[in-house]
Amino acid sequence: MAAEMSEQPAVLEALIQGRAEIYARVREVAPQPLHGIVFVARGSSDNAAVFGRYVCELSAGRPAGLAAPSIHTRYGAHVDYTGQLVIGLSQSGATPEIVTACERLRARGARVIAVTNDGESPLAAVGDLSLPLEAGLERAVPATKTVTAQMLMLALVAEALGPVPFTETDLARLPDAVAHALHDRAPAEEAVAAWSGANRLIVVARGLMLAAALETALKIRETAAIHAEGISSADLLHGPIAALGAELPVLMLRAGGVTDADLDALARRLDGTEVPVLQWAPAPALSEMLAPIVATVRGQQLARAWAIAAGLEADAPAGLSKVTATR
Amino acid sequence: MAAEMSEQPAVLEALIQGRAEIYARVREVAPQPLHGIVFVARGSSDNAAVFGRYVCELSAGRPAGLAAPSIHTRYGAHVDYTGQLVIGLSQSGATPEIVTACERLRARGARVIAVTNDGESPLAAVGDLSLPLEAGLERAVPATKTVTAQMLMLALVAEALGPVPFTETDLARLPDAVAHALHDRAPAEEAVAAWSGANRLIVVARGLMLAAALETALKIRETAAIHAEGISSADLLHGPIAALGAELPVLMLRAGGVTDADLDALARRLDGTEVPVLQWAPAPALSEMLAPIVATVRGQQLARAWAIAAGLEADAPAGLSKVTATR
Repeated sequence: MAAEMSEQPAVLEALIQGRAEIYARVREVAPQPLHGIVFVARGSSDNAAVFGRYVCELSAGRPAGLAAPSIHTRYGAHVDYTGQLVIGLSQSGATPEIVTACERLRARGARVIAVTNDGESPLAAVGDLSLPLEAGLERAVPATKTVTAQMLMLALVAEALGPVPFTETDLARLPDAVAHALHDRAPAEEAVAAWSGANRLIVVARGLMLAAALETALKIRETAAIHAEGISSADLLHGPIAALGAELPVLMLRAGGVTDADLDALARRLDGTEVPVLQWAPAPALSEMLAPIVATVRGQQLARAWAIAAGLEADAPAGLSKVTATR
Repeated sequence: MAAEMSEQPAVLEALIQGRAEIYARVREVAPQPLHGIVFVARGSSDNAAVFGRYVCELSAGRPAGLAAPSIHTRYGAHVDYTGQLVIGLSQSGATPEIVTACERLRARGARVIAVTNDGESPLAAVGDLSLPLEAGLERAVPATKTVTAQMLMLALVAEALGPVPFTETDLARLPDAVAHALHDRAPAEEAVAAWSGANRLIVVARGLMLAAALETALKIRETAAIHAEGISSADLLHGPIAALGAELPVLMLRAGGVTDADLDALARRLDGTEVPVLQWAPAPALSEMLAPIVATVRGQQLARAWAIAAGLEADAPAGLSKVTATR
């Protein structure tokens, strides 16, 4: 896991270098007119899709959302997907329900882009366009370099579809920002030390940063067997805040943008309670639209540090395998 | 809370009686052609929306999904919602971000239906069509009768948009099925006794029943201050299963349909582990499409029983108010 985490700056750099071709191929395949964008994914790929739904709705100016795969694989719905751009994401490209759902949506009129780390996979074969991540073989069960590569790929797809709120300079700085985070393990180690004894965590963010909160929580569950949950600050206020307490620490991920005020409001609400709160601003100098990629790396570090502190084998968690065969 | 729970059969019956008018009004307002359906909600209303996205995609045959409100209230996206049917849900009709998001989407071309329990609320005023639930004033902070009324309303909206897999007979039997559940408190009390000492719960379902799992978990968090989490069985397999253990009980909600096989597979996977598993089939005789409404009532009973066992005041949980003013 550590080895694969360390490859992230190079993987991201390679995608950035090849972006002109990505733009051209996405524009060629996107429906005209475009009615909407639908992501199909599970697990870490689904968290990347949460990031994708924000960036693509913002840039393409059409509604973007996440599919419920069972509507297609279990209920056999007859849904007209004409005018929809469907983006299927799977590290292996081999999860049956993602392949089946994309196949069905394509048969119902969608244009399908397959984002995988294996250009020879079944999912790649189903797409009108295959966008391989070229992240190199990922051996550790908890996905790391694939996830940040998926997120960057979706930022590039978003840019192909319309105007994005990040610049060439932001893009160019991303690999260095990730490298900088990788070299600084102190925040993760300090957090694990602060939460020693806790068996749970709530990771809170809002807007674009939500994807990083969800992925951080998933990575912690997978590697450290800690019951971590990612949630939007707005959703937390609509009920779940009632179940916070001294034994349930809260990690807030700040995006360095318009949504920071929402986290400030939440922090004020929790101030004076017994809830342990830690705030991270993983990439304050980067565009809010790319910051979640750096935050995701910080989350990987946290998961790994927690697994090590718990004496667990982060690379091959008990009960998980690299390809999850849901249908 | 108990008094409002007990009103549910009558509230549902009244909606069923008035359904002809609902069909007519929905058909009048739905865009032609319809490109997609987008739900805007938070909290319990968002869980009802999860149910709505399944039933409406199945019946209307167009992609349905949940909005990310911050795209509109925080990032001020310029998104073309022409051809989209937007359904805003809020018990009070007064949550600012839901009202603002619906207003903006309407200005961007969407037709908006407002589903609230207050036909004079700001949300009702924003819609092209207001569908009041007429559930009567809800005093307890944890919403109960509003949620099941919202779910039924969305099933009726789905029927207005296209063919649904439930019959007149199914609809007619729903209020009695809910009344039957309300009179039988044993399952909830037995579960709370079985989990005595636990401070967490995972509620698992798949497909249409997922909404009931999410709502059951939210209700438990709100009323019993227990860290409960609802999740799809497919999502659980993609990682979070690694963090299950002896101190994290799992409740499975069976829909009585095609997705039961997925829960069977999960149960086999957990068989022989130390994870305590309880399976409920809340409405085996009802259409899978209406069963989540009965399951939601069972979840309310569970939340209330757990709150009572913990010596908490279920009607007014600490730190929550009836209208949550997220923006």
